Amino acid sequence: MTLEEAQTLDAADPLAFAPARFALPDGVVYLDGNSLGALPKATAARIDETVQRQWGQDLITSWNKHGWIDAPTRVAARLAPIVGAKPNELLIADSTSVCLFKLLAAAVTARPGRSTILTERRNFPTDLYVAQGLVELNPGLRLGIVDRAELASSIDDDTGVLYLTQTDFCSGERHDMAALNAAARAAGALTLWDLSHSAGAFAVHLDDSGCDLAVGCGYKYLNGGPGAPAFLFVAEQLQAELRSPIAGWMGHSEPFAFDGDYRPAPGIARFLTGTPSILALAALEAGIATFDGVAMADIEAKSAALTRFFIDEVEAHCPELQLASPRDPAQRGSQVGFTHAQAYPIMQALIARGIIGDFRAPDLVRFGFAPLYNRFEDAWRAAAVLAEIMTAREWDQPQFHARQKVT
Amino acid sequence: MTLEEAQTLDAADPLAFAPARFALPDGVVYLDGNSLGALPKATAARIDETVQRQWGQDLITSWNKHGWIDAPTRVAARLAPIVGAKPNELLIADSTSVCLFKLLAAAVTARPGRSTILTERRNFPTDLYVAQGLVELNPGLRLGIVDRAELASSIDDDTGVLYLTQTDFCSGERHDMAALNAAARAAGALTLWDLSHSAGAFAVHLDDSGCDLAVGCGYKYLNGGPGAPAFLFVAEQLQAELRSPIAGWMGHSEPFAFDGDYRPAPGIARFLTGTPSILALAALEAGIATFDGVAMADIEAKSAALTRFFIDEVEAHCPELQLASPRDPAQRGSQVGFTHAQAYPIMQALIARGIIGDFRAPDLVRFGFAPLYNRFEDAWRAAAVLAEIMTAREWDQPQFHARQKVT
Repeated sequence: MTLEEAQTLDAADPLAFAPARFALPDGVVYLDGNSLGALPKATAARIDETVQRQWGQDLITSWNKHGWIDAPTRVAARLAPIVGAKPNELLIADSTSVCLFKLLAAAVTARPGRSTILTERRNFPTDLYVAQGLVELNPGLRLGIVDRAELASSIDDDTGVLYLTQTDFCSGERHDMAALNAAARAAGALTLWDLSHSAGAFAVHLDDSGCDLAVGCGYKYLNGGPGAPAFLFVAEQLQAELRSPIAGWMGHSEPFAFDGDYRPAPGIARFLTGTPSILALAALEAGIATFDGVAMADIEAKSAALTRFFIDEVEAHCPELQLASPRDPAQRGSQVGFTHAQAYPIMQALIARGIIGDFRAPDLVRFGFAPLYNRFEDAWRAAAVLAEIMTAREWDQPQFHARQKVT
Repeated sequence: MTLEEAQTLDAADPLAFAPARFALPDGVVYLDGNSLGALPKATAARIDETVQRQWGQDLITSWNKHGWIDAPTRVAARLAPIVGAKPNELLIADSTSVCLFKLLAAAVTARPGRSTILTERRNFPTDLYVAQGLVELNPGLRLGIVDRAELASSIDDDTGVLYLTQTDFCSGERHDMAALNAAARAAGALTLWDLSHSAGAFAVHLDDSGCDLAVGCGYKYLNGGPGAPAFLFVAEQLQAELRSPIAGWMGHSEPFAFDGDYRPAPGIARFLTGTPSILALAALEAGIATFDGVAMADIEAKSAALTRFFIDEVEAHCPELQLASPRDPAQRGSQVGFTHAQAYPIMQALIARGIIGDFRAPDLVRFGFAPLYNRFEDAWRAAAVLAEIMTAREWDQPQFHARQKVT
């Protein structure tokens, strides 16, 4: 492919209007939106309004005057078309890990005769840690960890929750949520999905695929800013049955009654705990707004085309890199990984040339393609620079081997 | 007292330089810093730098380049002189309620032979909810709720944790932390203190009074912005023994090894869970910086003088209001409450006149005095307007009786 061919693809892209919604620096090809989404152009003014006028001028009255009190449900409702859920099934709260803890604990408590949390060995590490922490706190539980291929056959009548990440953080491989949900339901187990590398990257169908519970990340493809709060999903028919283990005043049915007994709010709000960061919520709302008017079918199609384009280019020019992602776009998220023994310095050399992806131990270079702002031209440039680095062994320079604290 | 006498007190105040650090609106007397601290003048620029340059331009590299990865411990360390702790005993994380859950669960797990969480009936409601939620999750525990006068005598060899809020959110009454810590220690129990209405309001001595664990609020007297993250304290000698029940990747000893087994970080960082909001941390750092160069002895003295001044003025001019706070400044926080059957419309009438305090059900008007930015003139004006409202029965107007969602 030539640069001109990539530019022709960009010109025909139904999402061609979307990159203008982001403030990306000149000269940078940003392929790490799966780790930290780019800054939307509208965010800075939105935050400044929240800080200077709402907090600074209207002070405590902003809880009513500017609707701060409803922000966790109002912002979450805007996610409904992005993840295929009803607005009242979604909530913004805490961090991804804390939300996973809440929903995992709520789920096992709702299935008291069943002791197993079933997951896979390659689940995202923090998801495993959250389950380990819950089992330590409640020794009646056990964590069942199996290989991916054994998941469906391992669901049995002791399984309380099937607990998985939809899109693998390294390979980008996607689970078939509908099939696993059906298997879990048939066995009487609940399902809890981590959508961190899914939400905003392609079309997620929480309700149509029969999900019970889910948690997702606000700072990756949703562009909510570094450490943005997470979102959680509880299917409508389960909301009355489930209780958050971290009962806090914001989840109370009457938070301002200052009642001594916890009585959970009737709907999704019962999964709130403490007072949420209003600045972080404002930034997340501006991030989610970058999807306004966007059809998720276009996101899905562009993700598939961009990642396929990049794989083809890299495989054509860099034979020493091994593809670590599924070849079929329907089986992968919006990211591509390649393995190489020198993955760490290769990624440092790319970053020095303005191509920003990331490294994942031990040997993966990882590239995320955000369908809203990444273009075919970006994929072409990234592959071209990567080919130059590999051909010239540019990664062999000593400065690219020094390890950073955050990799 | 006359206005001129109040102004003379302000001129002699060793903290007279501090109000200029805040951006308070003209014509407002803000006495609700115990609910939401005022906006520091430095915050907007600090946030804008974090959004536009760090996030927008430097993107993912900011985790290293701008030290985002160390923000939870770096910002916390600045609290050390404010709460009387060592810098390595403090951490910024989550919300107050989530931090309470973490430390309460860690504490009961560290005292496995003891089943009782001992608290008082008038503890802050969310603190009670957190304990109720933990007991529901772990039925081997029980929540012992007694009256304040019975606390010391109720500590026994089944008490795992004594769990209290230092400053009562309504009356402002302060516990004697040192005495209760000594009683708990003698019985082999741990102590967990909620400092939400204490930190930044007067001098807190976590180490010198023998506290084991504590949690405090970032958005009240610390001026960190609406829903700012909380801080937590774990005494140095307990850090190796305690584990967070919500194990997440940020608390792992090697978060970027993406290891499948949780191995907690060696120090206070083990109490981190998920990725923290960097925008909220930047705002909180600017809030804590309003204490730079301030002696906590001056904060304590000004709090005592301001609250005493306000009580004297209100009692002199509004005999129908009943003082609900201790008269001795050493026994109260930096807030004053009065009860009246018409407390709700009285507070609405005050707010309509630019005097911002708050109402707490069923019958309390509450006024917080932030020693950094509230002046004797503010206390004088608030008392004068309150006297006018009471004398003219201004609160009897119908618009002041309509209930708002957030009170």
